Amino acid sequence: VDAVAQDAARDRQNALTKPPGSLGRLEELAVFMAGWQQQAMPQIDMAQALVFAGNHGICAQGVNPFPQEVTAQMVQNFKAGGAAINQLCRTNDAQLSVIDLDLDRPTADFTQGPAMTEADCVAALNAGAAALHPAASVLILGEMGIGNSTVAAALTAAVFGGAVQDWVGRGTGSDDEGLRRKVDAITRGLARHAATPQDGASILMTLGGREQAAICGAVLAARQRRIPVILDGFICTASVAPLFALAPAALDHCLIGHLSVEPGHKRLLDAIGKTAVLDFDMRLGEGSGAALALGILRSALACHSGMATFAEAGVADG
Amino acid sequence: VDAVAQDAARDRQNALTKPPGSLGRLEELAVFMAGWQQQAMPQIDMAQALVFAGNHGICAQGVNPFPQEVTAQMVQNFKAGGAAINQLCRTNDAQLSVIDLDLDRPTADFTQGPAMTEADCVAALNAGAAALHPAASVLILGEMGIGNSTVAAALTAAVFGGAVQDWVGRGTGSDDEGLRRKVDAITRGLARHAATPQDGASILMTLGGREQAAICGAVLAARQRRIPVILDGFICTASVAPLFALAPAALDHCLIGHLSVEPGHKRLLDAIGKTAVLDFDMRLGEGSGAALALGILRSALACHSGMATFAEAGVADG
Repeated sequence: VDAVAQDAARDRQNALTKPPGSLGRLEELAVFMAGWQQQAMPQIDMAQALVFAGNHGICAQGVNPFPQEVTAQMVQNFKAGGAAINQLCRTNDAQLSVIDLDLDRPTADFTQGPAMTEADCVAALNAGAAALHPAASVLILGEMGIGNSTVAAALTAAVFGGAVQDWVGRGTGSDDEGLRRKVDAITRGLARHAATPQDGASILMTLGGREQAAICGAVLAARQRRIPVILDGFICTASVAPLFALAPAALDHCLIGHLSVEPGHKRLLDAIGKTAVLDFDMRLGEGSGAALALGILRSALACHSGMATFAEAGVADG
Repeated sequence: VDAVAQDAARDRQNALTKPPGSLGRLEELAVFMAGWQQQAMPQIDMAQALVFAGNHGICAQGVNPFPQEVTAQMVQNFKAGGAAINQLCRTNDAQLSVIDLDLDRPTADFTQGPAMTEADCVAALNAGAAALHPAASVLILGEMGIGNSTVAAALTAAVFGGAVQDWVGRGTGSDDEGLRRKVDAITRGLARHAATPQDGASILMTLGGREQAAICGAVLAARQRRIPVILDGFICTASVAPLFALAPAALDHCLIGHLSVEPGHKRLLDAIGKTAVLDFDMRLGEGSGAALALGILRSALACHSGMATFAEAGVADG
């Protein structure tokens, strides 16, 4: 991150026609963007949104009340423009691409063996990296995949430890019995792979899924190009937990769009030392919370770039 | 509020291609708007933002480190397009009008007598009501006035009681000594008017200011036309405390844009039974938090109106 650009952005914030600090987190967002865009006046010329979709072998353990066909149905809905993420990208001006990853070839059931082969995992990482538009000013990330709240909880439990049930929530409509099945499947999965090296790459391969790997690939590619990222909720943030395990600084260019209702998200944000931009009782995924936060980011940069300074406006600054 | 339209909006939310409730507070905002716009598919054709400015005799008590001239300077900055509210209205597509109310004729010092005559108060109420555009889909309200965080604290202390210091914060840049002067001035003001009838209209007249009365007038006019309102932070919300004193339901059509850092705001929202849309550590005024919340409201309505239902999209809804 460019500390010189950040300092210049902070100086500008303190010269604008308002009490210093009075725009609160809008000021912090402007300074964050200045650092990653390496300019005192950061801007959003093009916001890219990527939604990755995958299917999961763990569904064989009855962890989700919906059939896996819903993943493809929702991808179709995304492509037809009928989902929440379509409306949120339109309203907040993001260019949306939906990338479905071998939906007819789910990952393997991680209670029985590794979810992905190395080749599958690398292919998904590469698909994620390749999807990034190099001219994006900011990248919004989201996911869709029946069963992937179980995958997310497995990843966070493996990376951060603690009781499995503390990472597990209801996802999309699990009842108490479904919740119990999720905890049980993850517990057996962690035991099954206890002898596997516990580095981030191995955890991603054994417990993750294609859309999780693609999100990792996109986050890494964005980092290489210093493009700031807005992650969505629990599943999206959990997807990059393996990157945090490899190097905590790997997520320094990432904002968290919103705090999900899914209880593991707060725990996860505490573990990675981040605060969400919004807290709106949402739990949809698809990148919806990240796209909503994009609108806030646009307002933050508009104030930063468009406001007059005290000197320009002839206002007494005390 | 139109309960039939609200029920229709709720039914629609539950038919859209997402788990019911998964858009959290975005869903609540859509239902709120449906009720006041009296249609199941509420929309924002035109968002109006009104910022009222006034000057205050209480400044004679040394309650503010800035000279009263700053009010007119900031109004000039609003009119030139250089303030935060200008950028936020542009980004979130609101039509901004700035209305300065007799800036060269401050109200009277309320420690010495009533801040406004009945004629002054009624003129300001009428100016606020007249400023409402009858075709507004939603009204954003804000204020500017050196010294008006003291006025706001006086209004809330008079309406809701409790210790004066619990309503007083640093406003724009008061130090400990300035804080003490604010508490002292309000305490003397309340004592001075203890014999005055404690109804909302009297409190507004004796302790309020022109921009507070104008905000009350705009809120009342909007209510008459069933136009939903987004109030800003502490000072804007405190401005309508006298309306709450007259009839708590008078604020049913109002959202609170953001929770201010000013400590009295949380206490005030608890007293009127409302939760802010955003919590962004802001304390600027000008309607900035309300304009930021407008962007969220636009996203909420875009999802509500633009999403496909499960039936339309051919997605299994369990």
